[in-house]
Amino acid sequence: MTKEFPVETGAGDTITDITDAVQKVVSSGRIEEGICVVSSPHTTVGVTVNENYDPDVKKDMLMKLVDLIPREDGYRHMEGNSAAHLKATITGISVTLPIIDGRLALGRWQGIYFCDYDGPRRRRVRVSIVGS
Amino acid sequence: MTKEFPVETGAGDTITDITDAVQKVVSSGRIEEGICVVSSPHTTVGVTVNENYDPDVKKDMLMKLVDLIPREDGYRHMEGNSAAHLKATITGISVTLPIIDGRLALGRWQGIYFCDYDGPRRRRVRVSIVGS
Amino acid sequence: MTKEFPVETGAGDTITDITDAVQKVVSSGRIEEGICVVSSPHTTVGVTVNENYDPDVKKDMLMKLVDLIPREDGYRHMEGNSAAHLKATITGISVTLPIIDGRLALGRWQGIYFCDYDGPRRRRVRVSIVGS
Repeated sequence: MTKEFPVETGAGDTITDITDAVQKVVSSGRIEEGICVVSSPHTTVGVTVNENYDPDVKKDMLMKLVDLIPREDGYRHMEGNSAAHLKATITGISVTLPIIDGRLALGRWQGIYFCDYDGPRRRRVRVSIVGS
Repeated sequence: MTKEFPVETGAGDTITDITDAVQKVVSSGRIEEGICVVSSPHTTVGVTVNENYDPDVKKDMLMKLVDLIPREDGYRHMEGNSAAHLKATITGISVTLPIIDGRLALGRWQGIYFCDYDGPRRRRVRVSIVGS
Repeated sequence: MTKEFPVETGAGDTITDITDAVQKVVSSGRIEEGICVVSSPHTTVGVTVNENYDPDVKKDMLMKLVDLIPREDGYRHMEGNSAAHLKATITGISVTLPIIDGRLALGRWQGIYFCDYDGPRRRRVRVSIVGS
């Protein structure tokens, strides 16, 4: 089963914590033991899991990624968002997590991050669950 | 169920669009709702999803990766392809995507990219599907 | 089904080969055809697949990652491990692999690497298997 929900992102590079929304989809599904795949149908968005306690972790991640992959760097792609495409691939476009006892089994400090590298946009998140 | 198909890659760093071949495997399988995992059994290959409309996106991705992780950089590994190993890990060695109504559910601009960082070689792609 | 096992890591950045331990979980499970997800419940750990023949590949990977993402780099996060968080995201926090004939289907040179970027610690690995 795959369900979709929207995310409204801010300008430029932003990280949105989507943990609660994903947990809701998993909890409402009928899978007790299995896995959950959170993916993006976009090409300038990454999905990852990282610490969601100190908000500075998100800021540091975005800062360092921009530092490694600057917005302008002699790219050929006319649309001007080549850096965003590469950051999506480096981040990964999906995460896969265990479902245990009908719930997403995250570590204590883990949150699911939707990383838009080319906002602001109305984006979509896909949550697929499989198992039994 | 896992099926395999070959990919012939070019010299050095190349990206091959394998979307249609993966879609064919998914369409011929018996999974209506579930997920598809596209993986590589190699150690210098990455698999990712990105824009497959403008071919410059692929060129920019490869150019910037070589820029970040040069072929020669004081590596110890005698085989001389340490950069390729690291690029495989950074890209990721698999992607996981939803299957909806018996088909791979890609976003409008998404294509599946097989990134060989140590070609030319005859490579293999593995497509696993699970669900119901 | 998800099973967990511990990993004791060394100081700083280390890579531990967990292939055999994961294979054991898969072999003891009841899935003949499907997929295996190896994930980490931590936020400064990456999980990847790469060559486990020449140990220099691991050293080169860690060296180059530290080179790209230095431990100190003007980060805001007070805990001082922002580089470790970013390296976890760049590596990916899980890998997904095919299960064929009841066994993990790895390529000839592939091993599963547990990359701790903030050791030494007692860590946990989660192995989830789905299929039939």
